Amino acid sequence: MSSVNTINRIAIITSGGDAPGMNAALRAVVLAAENYGIEVMGFRHGYEGLLTNDFVKLDREDVEHILQYSGTIIKSARSERFKSEEGGREAATNLDAHQIDAFIVIGGDGSFRGAEHLANFWKGPIIGIPGTIDNDLFGTDNTIGYDTAVETAMDALDKIRDTAEAMDRVFIVEVMGRNAGYIGISSAMACGAERMILPELQKDKPLTVDALVKHIESVQRVRGDSSYVMVLCENQWPGGAVRLAEQLEDRLNLPCRPCLLGHVQRGGRPTAMDRILGTRLGVHAVELVRQGKTAVMAGVTANELSETPLIDTWTKRKKLSEELINIQQSLFNPIKKDRNKSTQ
Amino acid sequence: MSSVNTINRIAIITSGGDAPGMNAALRAVVLAAENYGIEVMGFRHGYEGLLTNDFVKLDREDVEHILQYSGTIIKSARSERFKSEEGGREAATNLDAHQIDAFIVIGGDGSFRGAEHLANFWKGPIIGIPGTIDNDLFGTDNTIGYDTAVETAMDALDKIRDTAEAMDRVFIVEVMGRNAGYIGISSAMACGAERMILPELQKDKPLTVDALVKHIESVQRVRGDSSYVMVLCENQWPGGAVRLAEQLEDRLNLPCRPCLLGHVQRGGRPTAMDRILGTRLGVHAVELVRQGKTAVMAGVTANELSETPLIDTWTKRKKLSEELINIQQSLFNPIKKDRNKSTQ
Amino acid sequence: MSSVNTINRIAIITSGGDAPGMNAALRAVVLAAENYGIEVMGFRHGYEGLLTNDFVKLDREDVEHILQYSGTIIKSARSERFKSEEGGREAATNLDAHQIDAFIVIGGDGSFRGAEHLANFWKGPIIGIPGTIDNDLFGTDNTIGYDTAVETAMDALDKIRDTAEAMDRVFIVEVMGRNAGYIGISSAMACGAERMILPELQKDKPLTVDALVKHIESVQRVRGDSSYVMVLCENQWPGGAVRLAEQLEDRLNLPCRPCLLGHVQRGGRPTAMDRILGTRLGVHAVELVRQGKTAVMAGVTANELSETPLIDTWTKRKKLSEELINIQQSLFNPIKKDRNKSTQ
Amino acid sequence: MSSVNTINRIAIITSGGDAPGMNAALRAVVLAAENYGIEVMGFRHGYEGLLTNDFVKLDREDVEHILQYSGTIIKSARSERFKSEEGGREAATNLDAHQIDAFIVIGGDGSFRGAEHLANFWKGPIIGIPGTIDNDLFGTDNTIGYDTAVETAMDALDKIRDTAEAMDRVFIVEVMGRNAGYIGISSAMACGAERMILPELQKDKPLTVDALVKHIESVQRVRGDSSYVMVLCENQWPGGAVRLAEQLEDRLNLPCRPCLLGHVQRGGRPTAMDRILGTRLGVHAVELVRQGKTAVMAGVTANELSETPLIDTWTKRKKLSEELINIQQSLFNPIKKDRNKSTQ
Repeated sequence: MSSVNTINRIAIITSGGDAPGMNAALRAVVLAAENYGIEVMGFRHGYEGLLTNDFVKLDREDVEHILQYSGTIIKSARSERFKSEEGGREAATNLDAHQIDAFIVIGGDGSFRGAEHLANFWKGPIIGIPGTIDNDLFGTDNTIGYDTAVETAMDALDKIRDTAEAMDRVFIVEVMGRNAGYIGISSAMACGAERMILPELQKDKPLTVDALVKHIESVQRVRGDSSYVMVLCENQWPGGAVRLAEQLEDRLNLPCRPCLLGHVQRGGRPTAMDRILGTRLGVHAVELVRQGKTAVMAGVTANELSETPLIDTWTKRKKLSEELINIQQSLFNPIKKDRNKSTQ
Repeated sequence: MSSVNTINRIAIITSGGDAPGMNAALRAVVLAAENYGIEVMGFRHGYEGLLTNDFVKLDREDVEHILQYSGTIIKSARSERFKSEEGGREAATNLDAHQIDAFIVIGGDGSFRGAEHLANFWKGPIIGIPGTIDNDLFGTDNTIGYDTAVETAMDALDKIRDTAEAMDRVFIVEVMGRNAGYIGISSAMACGAERMILPELQKDKPLTVDALVKHIESVQRVRGDSSYVMVLCENQWPGGAVRLAEQLEDRLNLPCRPCLLGHVQRGGRPTAMDRILGTRLGVHAVELVRQGKTAVMAGVTANELSETPLIDTWTKRKKLSEELINIQQSLFNPIKKDRNKSTQ
Repeated sequence: MSSVNTINRIAIITSGGDAPGMNAALRAVVLAAENYGIEVMGFRHGYEGLLTNDFVKLDREDVEHILQYSGTIIKSARSERFKSEEGGREAATNLDAHQIDAFIVIGGDGSFRGAEHLANFWKGPIIGIPGTIDNDLFGTDNTIGYDTAVETAMDALDKIRDTAEAMDRVFIVEVMGRNAGYIGISSAMACGAERMILPELQKDKPLTVDALVKHIESVQRVRGDSSYVMVLCENQWPGGAVRLAEQLEDRLNLPCRPCLLGHVQRGGRPTAMDRILGTRLGVHAVELVRQGKTAVMAGVTANELSETPLIDTWTKRKKLSEELINIQQSLFNPIKKDRNKSTQ
Repeated sequence: MSSVNTINRIAIITSGGDAPGMNAALRAVVLAAENYGIEVMGFRHGYEGLLTNDFVKLDREDVEHILQYSGTIIKSARSERFKSEEGGREAATNLDAHQIDAFIVIGGDGSFRGAEHLANFWKGPIIGIPGTIDNDLFGTDNTIGYDTAVETAMDALDKIRDTAEAMDRVFIVEVMGRNAGYIGISSAMACGAERMILPELQKDKPLTVDALVKHIESVQRVRGDSSYVMVLCENQWPGGAVRLAEQLEDRLNLPCRPCLLGHVQRGGRPTAMDRILGTRLGVHAVELVRQGKTAVMAGVTANELSETPLIDTWTKRKKLSEELINIQQSLFNPIKKDRNKSTQ
């Protein structure tokens, strides 16, 4: 912390899919910056705002009480135009025109690739804050929004379980996570789902309808009832939960009901964990700016503040915990018991 | 209340789709009955339990603290077998074998038709308690479970709104209510949905993709942003929310995202309103039994306890409030403003 | 609806204790007014804003998406200054200076008394909208905010019940309602509280520590366990829940734990019911203004829109439902059973 | 993992204050044990059940779907009798009589001291699982129940904030944590509380009413409004939140309102994080038993499974994060800004 750069004005955007807790990070950046007499300019609608010069000065009173709201007060978007060379150049010109000394982007891997693109045209320090419900960024144990999304998926699964216990049925709940099964495994484990279909597992050995039917029938035999709840990550089954429910219903003598949570998972009051994480990372990002760091993502790793080169966040792969997969797969698997029985 | 019948033992079932608050009604029946020294036998899995003699004696300690749980502790089901003449006769025989003096069924219109079927074979008093999230029973302002289902749909819509405000998009949320738009209109109104597609409105004048596109574009023009949330009742669009989202995305320059709530709407902690309604109706049903009433449904109409012939509950039609439809349609309709503008 | 007054500008305030759903009413007034080309001016901080000329013009975009937020975007307050003759006169002068044609106040009985005071000095139409969590206004079945407050109290009681079932204990939860036991009885009934202490019951026959100890011991005897949850309305016990817990603990061989919910009950996302009620009443208020009505409160009685002279709202008394009191008192009372046992 | 002990029967208790997620741990122990053919006996009411031989065999069907419920299905308690030499001896005798091979206790530091006491009389392996909302155990980053308790406190604080924003006021919310400020700091940070009073901070430099009044007035000056929310840990102020509110109201020209959350914080549906933690620790505890470990607590440290000598869990002190205290104290402190202003 010996060399502290002179920073007078920071630009900040929220980019890509919004995530609950982005506002907490935004607030922390503004409050931490204010303590050092640094101004913060929020550009609206992600990188698009850098092109259209759609910005707002953010003061303490703008952010003081936004902690409990999801979404992002400076809005988010995906910008195709920014990805071009011309777009990058224009954004850089605008940042300079506003005398911006540092740039902070809150978002996921697409947003960080955008930051890399910007770095080709703009020479100031750039810091990333991991904000995405998917939790698929290397360099931080959790991303902002992930914990809330898991709670939302869990809430739906709990409600499904209520009705599954009242009337024996098969339910398929489709959750987000086309590239990573974080929401999938955590919500499945939190609700004791009988089955989960994750990208990490599908890649090696895709499930078939036959295999699913066999497992469901096995659970029925062991348990003596037929309530069966499955967590399906998006993009892991052609036609999704709706199609899979039809396929299973054709084969089983049981109603199969789909549920597609969709963007419900992006909303909702952020959990305490996401608010605290957002706050810590917002403060950390301002410190990194002052320390002259650039092209790094602020993170929390093993409870400690960390920093990771932006490029690593998407080129390196954070691995889903094998401990959790093992617990969920081997432990709560009634097939094993069924097999024991049938051999007796 | 002059003539009070001698009732020693009541049988009770929960039947059809389960609804949050059924347990509250169950509890109230048991506690009210106990006060008169009446025994309560719960038959499990709806009418099916009458055929299989799957029952349990319900005492105070069984029901004392089930108020906060959805589902039904005696489980529910739909029974094809019971609908036959043989099924009805068998159920009657079993009720007599257990010396049942009165029969209470908690459920929706299908369950009440079942009660009518039973009445052909069994001569004891039969009382219905309206338990269905759909609220489509004549003779009671609200059915048990409806208020909770609206809260659940509202919760999803609120979360969708969060993300819709952060990123301009079209969202379609499919809710329950294939025959009646109660959940649809209440959740749409509670969340300020830009559009609702209800069976009552579709019947007269089905919406086209063209009309929807026109409305969405009109809202965009008036508002200057593009967040648009639509509530779609199930069975009101071929292929449901998933298909409609594809159709709209083909036509609009905007991402359209579906959400299919499904059976999530049947679960969740019952609201206070559903617990209180369930409690009042459970107590009321026991009083009706003691007064020698039969083939009636216990209800609450204009805040007062009421009774309605079971047959009326499905032959007469409870009408969706025109006041609410008018408010939701004419008032919050940006097209009107758009039209004014364009004529200037 | 024959005579429709020419109204160009409506002033609106939210006054007294805030209640979840006030924003829904505010929104509905603005949107309904806009449909008739009427402007709406919101004065901030209740009657205080009429004195300080602290106002804001409210347009569609200001209110479009405030449905899901509790509190009130134009803030509320209690104003001593306004109650004087000078205050009333000043408010009237300001309303005239802003060419206000009608005045709408959202609040409770204190706010409506304020409206009566204003009517001495200002001749335009004045309409009240019932907004208070206490539900103690004559002329409407429910006030805006009441349903949400009951849910909040219920939520706390449910959590207390969780731990009460895990460890046998006595719990006292203090809820709002110093003059009326609406929140008290509804939350007690929704959670199956073993005892409730309401103003309506205390007035006739105040409970003693002795009587409570007797009841608790009786419940212990009948049930065989000692979990006991009591709902206490504020101001019904000297020293409140904290003191009562000490008094009971002195007498019983059991830990007694107080909980004081306080203003938590005023916050939280409004329920669908409160949002819909607020919306209906907001629209209704604008219609009443257009019909030339004055000094009335918009209400919903037996599901129908109603209007009641403002003065009746606090001079006449809405009575707590005897049906509910009877259910809660006589039905779930283990003492009766205990007495039967002991006489055998 | 080379030496695997022969374990046929495990005894388990939940002890001390119950915590949401205890059921998840219980479930995981039973399911993991079943996979190895190990029986699990649950003794009810904590150590008391070891004395009274109040036990139940726990099978898959008993625990399959208890994940979403707080409390503990085998109940908890504090036992004075067990703490004596005679009590310890009796418990040991009973464990031997039931041919128990290993003992698992889910609870906090008091429960682990109980385990140490038991170890004086019983020679089998003893494993602790950290279950307490207070999070004050050395050897695990989080205890089961802590995350849920923080969410509950946050929920109350959010609701208070709603009403604080509508009407300028001072609010004091008393939360649990008489020895450790974990719930205090996390909920304060999650809600942007203006002030927190934690045991860790009080110890060194207890706050005075004067200092609080000064801070509140300073916040008022800087902000221009008077909403002020304070988090007070229990036992940190004589007379608690109720007394402090009176003291502040005497000094300030503002209403000050107390809220006492009490045991509400022990209840409520466990969060996903608590369910997953409970599940991991339950599985881990069974593995530790099989590895022949004894007198250790299963924990999760820096995301990895860990084990810590039971005695360390209460003799060593887990320190509240200085990073969090610094953020909360220095960053969001309007006094600093006020001071700058006044020196100008």
